[in-house]
Amino acid sequence: MKQSQLFTKTRKDAPSDEVSKNAQLLIRAGFIHKEMAGVYSWLPLGLKVINNIKRIVDEEMRAMGSVELLMSTLQNKNTWTQTGRWDDQKVDVWFKSNLKNDTEVGFGWSHEEPITQMMRDHVASYNDLPRVVHQFQNKLRNETRAKSGVMRGREFIMKDMYSYATSNEEHLAIYNRATEAYNKVFERLSLGDDTYITSASGGAFTSNFSHEFQTLCDAGEDTIYVHKTQKLAVNEEIFNDETMTKLGTKKEDYEARTAAEVGNIFTFGTEKCEQMGLTFKDATGATVPAFLGSYGIGITRVMGVVVEKFADDKGMVWPESVAPFAVHLVELSQGNEEIKKTANDLYADLTKAGVEVLYDDRDARAGEKFADSDLIGIPYRIVVGKHTTPDSIEVVRRKDGTVTQHLQSAILSGTYAT
Amino acid sequence: MKQSQLFTKTRKDAPSDEVSKNAQLLIRAGFIHKEMAGVYSWLPLGLKVINNIKRIVDEEMRAMGSVELLMSTLQNKNTWTQTGRWDDQKVDVWFKSNLKNDTEVGFGWSHEEPITQMMRDHVASYNDLPRVVHQFQNKLRNETRAKSGVMRGREFIMKDMYSYATSNEEHLAIYNRATEAYNKVFERLSLGDDTYITSASGGAFTSNFSHEFQTLCDAGEDTIYVHKTQKLAVNEEIFNDETMTKLGTKKEDYEARTAAEVGNIFTFGTEKCEQMGLTFKDATGATVPAFLGSYGIGITRVMGVVVEKFADDKGMVWPESVAPFAVHLVELSQGNEEIKKTANDLYADLTKAGVEVLYDDRDARAGEKFADSDLIGIPYRIVVGKHTTPDSIEVVRRKDGTVTQHLQSAILSGTYAT
Repeated sequence: MKQSQLFTKTRKDAPSDEVSKNAQLLIRAGFIHKEMAGVYSWLPLGLKVINNIKRIVDEEMRAMGSVELLMSTLQNKNTWTQTGRWDDQKVDVWFKSNLKNDTEVGFGWSHEEPITQMMRDHVASYNDLPRVVHQFQNKLRNETRAKSGVMRGREFIMKDMYSYATSNEEHLAIYNRATEAYNKVFERLSLGDDTYITSASGGAFTSNFSHEFQTLCDAGEDTIYVHKTQKLAVNEEIFNDETMTKLGTKKEDYEARTAAEVGNIFTFGTEKCEQMGLTFKDATGATVPAFLGSYGIGITRVMGVVVEKFADDKGMVWPESVAPFAVHLVELSQGNEEIKKTANDLYADLTKAGVEVLYDDRDARAGEKFADSDLIGIPYRIVVGKHTTPDSIEVVRRKDGTVTQHLQSAILSGTYAT
Repeated sequence: MKQSQLFTKTRKDAPSDEVSKNAQLLIRAGFIHKEMAGVYSWLPLGLKVINNIKRIVDEEMRAMGSVELLMSTLQNKNTWTQTGRWDDQKVDVWFKSNLKNDTEVGFGWSHEEPITQMMRDHVASYNDLPRVVHQFQNKLRNETRAKSGVMRGREFIMKDMYSYATSNEEHLAIYNRATEAYNKVFERLSLGDDTYITSASGGAFTSNFSHEFQTLCDAGEDTIYVHKTQKLAVNEEIFNDETMTKLGTKKEDYEARTAAEVGNIFTFGTEKCEQMGLTFKDATGATVPAFLGSYGIGITRVMGVVVEKFADDKGMVWPESVAPFAVHLVELSQGNEEIKKTANDLYADLTKAGVEVLYDDRDARAGEKFADSDLIGIPYRIVVGKHTTPDSIEVVRRKDGTVTQHLQSAILSGTYAT
């Protein structure tokens, strides 16, 4: 894409009320627009990042056997009163409003209840189970504070997945597949090394265990205890002697770290399906409730964590798998037609070869172009200036300024794909 | 995809409160789930149809120079008070709620104002214009009645596009490109022949003209006047002598038809940009407001119209471009391993060749499988039964029961793609 066609501009300063680094950088680089505290719109560059993260998550969820659907934002009160979660005392993030006939409606902050309700039409016998479904949904949560940029919005995009199984054993097999799928996702997002499967308590409506995927990140809101030698972590809430005994470890083997929750997996057990009447006939002919599991990944939160973790003092540094473009092609023609032609030709060649290129063809100073390029943070940069010939083209990596020969030749020959 | 992995089931009856044919069929075939009147969730088959329609629309909008973004659902009151459209007297479909600190928020029913507000950060001079942006957004509208199924939901997916131009002339060029792009879209959706660009009045906030794209459809809510010999139509509101004079036609040349509005294009002129302060420096250095155009296509409404128009007494009949799958492969093995193997092999071959196949591998009676297949309405069906050999495989078209030789060979050789 030509940068002259991208309508967004970079800016020197973020809005003065924006305190989070991720939103400051994303706003300054033109990836997002701030509508109000905790509410952002996704401009073309930001939407491309979101779609890249979604694609990775979607592929891994499908690979573990899940099917995609999309539930409504508008929520039926009757669906939620069955489990008591319509109550603002139990769920304190509801946005609610009224239809013209004064019927109360809610706005979806999570979807366990509506998906369970819907599943009742499609599950009758053990032959209909297990089922795993997922969606990418725009959640609305009436958060009291929203100061973490896109890491905790009042509106955010989440991948939520739900599994329905005939037995605890069948549920656990799915739970383990989900754990593996999540590991693959965070690996592909370049967050693998710093992401810990963290044991956590189950919370009010879940049974006795759950796991969080926590990524070490200074901007995170959580403290986790990370084992000094094993890839093992424990949530602050359950960092106690009982947990240590269960895990066979000692408190002094751990150190406290700041982290952001990028995913979670819950075992609900049979309670919710019992409350909502999602039952099936088992092999003996008895009518029993299904086992529910719930698995979330905050798509826009992951975007924020990636910004926070990899940004340097010049701007953002996107990992290749989620970057809005693979290559930032910057021409410094200053009106020189020959330089312009070299750059145009290279843009055409790379595009034809399937490399995703943002082409800075704007009539702007070199300093401005470099500063913008650093801020936007595309993984590889190619500069075409007055000394550039087709043989002297160099691909420079944003994160460390190096020229990596095998990537250089892959990109220039068009065999590189994100 | 194997039908045994698709969790949705067909059903004999739609909910008793569902009066629209499109929602009845979509619910019965497992494409959608009804949450409440006018609110539906999109199950895997329905989501696939939506994504196919979106892809066609997206391709044509990009081809005319638009860039995709995604605005928030939560709306800032201050953005809308600038044009007076926060007022429930002026806009009677708002859903509103409150943040914890009692700040009022709205839920997006349209996005002219927030996009214009956002654009202020990115437009300064005539060099920054024209700009065209579009999104696929989940609109929420507090409709009094919602009895048309997915054709008029309280929640629905819309493609909305906005153009900002320096002059009326530049605006009109975009407006004309949008008209052409819309024609291509409806052509690709198989609605081309029955879709009319209908002259309409501008409405309260638009200047003196607008056009609706109206598709002849018995379930539509509009009456349009269609010219008996030319591809020309006029909206009921402006079917008067003044319009006839403008068009150089006579009232008796038209006949009244029932139609559904599948798209619309509006000229807002400069009023909204003036109200909101979206101005730019023109070539003379003067500060002037931009010209706004707005262009909608109801993605989920189009889905409803397609169902209504093409369904027969056995179920839905999807055009190839939007069908959830190209081929419905139905095996009638009844436990016969040889038949099962022939069907499995064919499924593997077709899938490998890139043909989108729904494979009915369920252990069910032939009658049930045929009835389900008719109801779901996939364009081509291949039945593998006891007399089927690899040489006798036939591809039967859903809409007329015929075997079309060139499509048969294309599908079976895997060179067919939707």
